[in-house]
Amino acid sequence: MKKSLGAKTILYPTPVLLVCSFDSDGCANVMTASWGGLCCSEPPCVAVSLRKARYSYDNVMNRKAFTVNVPSAGQVREADYVGIYSGRDEDKLQALGLTAVKSELVDAPYIEQCPLVLECTLKETLELGIHTQFIGEIVDVKIDESALNEKGKPDLAKLQPFCFAPGDGGYYAIGEKIAQSFSIGKKS
Amino acid sequence: MKKSLGAKTILYPTPVLLVCSFDSDGCANVMTASWGGLCCSEPPCVAVSLRKARYSYDNVMNRKAFTVNVPSAGQVREADYVGIYSGRDEDKLQALGLTAVKSELVDAPYIEQCPLVLECTLKETLELGIHTQFIGEIVDVKIDESALNEKGKPDLAKLQPFCFAPGDGGYYAIGEKIAQSFSIGKKS
Repeated sequence: MKKSLGAKTILYPTPVLLVCSFDSDGCANVMTASWGGLCCSEPPCVAVSLRKARYSYDNVMNRKAFTVNVPSAGQVREADYVGIYSGRDEDKLQALGLTAVKSELVDAPYIEQCPLVLECTLKETLELGIHTQFIGEIVDVKIDESALNEKGKPDLAKLQPFCFAPGDGGYYAIGEKIAQSFSIGKKS
Repeated sequence: MKKSLGAKTILYPTPVLLVCSFDSDGCANVMTASWGGLCCSEPPCVAVSLRKARYSYDNVMNRKAFTVNVPSAGQVREADYVGIYSGRDEDKLQALGLTAVKSELVDAPYIEQCPLVLECTLKETLELGIHTQFIGEIVDVKIDESALNEKGKPDLAKLQPFCFAPGDGGYYAIGEKIAQSFSIGKKS
């Protein structure tokens, strides 16, 4: 038996994306976005939704670039912090002892301590209501060498990404591999 | 030290979304999408990206509606199956013994056996390249009563959602709660 919860933003999992940008002074800022995800394979694109009130909004609009940084479970405090406080009031990266590295490919910084980084140019914006969706074309993906497996592929056990759960507000670890895609579902 | 992986669709976690629609004969279809996520809080919206070649593409375009069904870890075989095979060739829901329920709110079916369902009207489409992004306005969220906790909120331990990992192609369980949002990151 199903129960109606109403018209709400409930979906599992949602990602925890640290969006980095430069402000008009060239100061690096970071904020947390959970409304987002991959949205196109070719060209490779990622979407993140920001409210107009966010300090990052004008940054991304002006610089036409941003990076998406995926934090590890050990960085959950930092990820939550940059979602609570504003870059208008402080240099959040400095406050947390995080290092902003200027991307060589796009006009935005990324976080050295985050194990996975997507460098993006702003491809499109879409006004949806309270949020504006920013579509970034992924120019490069950078990963910590220590987070690769012996085949040179991302190793989730080393990356330790985590997710956000709307509705209960928790951050949850990514657990065990339960199956392989394009395999478990094949007709026998 | 970071290593460049190139311009690729690598992000963790990505969701496993079963998108349901009616075809021109009123037959229910379902496909798996991992490029998607929530994208606006007000009005509540969810985005899913489909390729033009997908049987579901015309369905959603014609009916202006779809549902997003979140499967449980116990349904990983079914979720993979509906991403491999096409509704042009068979009734996938019937093949898997899944029940399509006609939504009373939107012109699309949902899957009775999926514990969490978002009923959506098509709000916008955005051509991005190989994929078209479909923005659905969430009209209602329905959840199995058995997946609620004692406070009437979604319980992830009962829902058991899982995610997809581009790059290694695995499906991963959602694990333990590691922190509470808007709390762990607060200045002390």
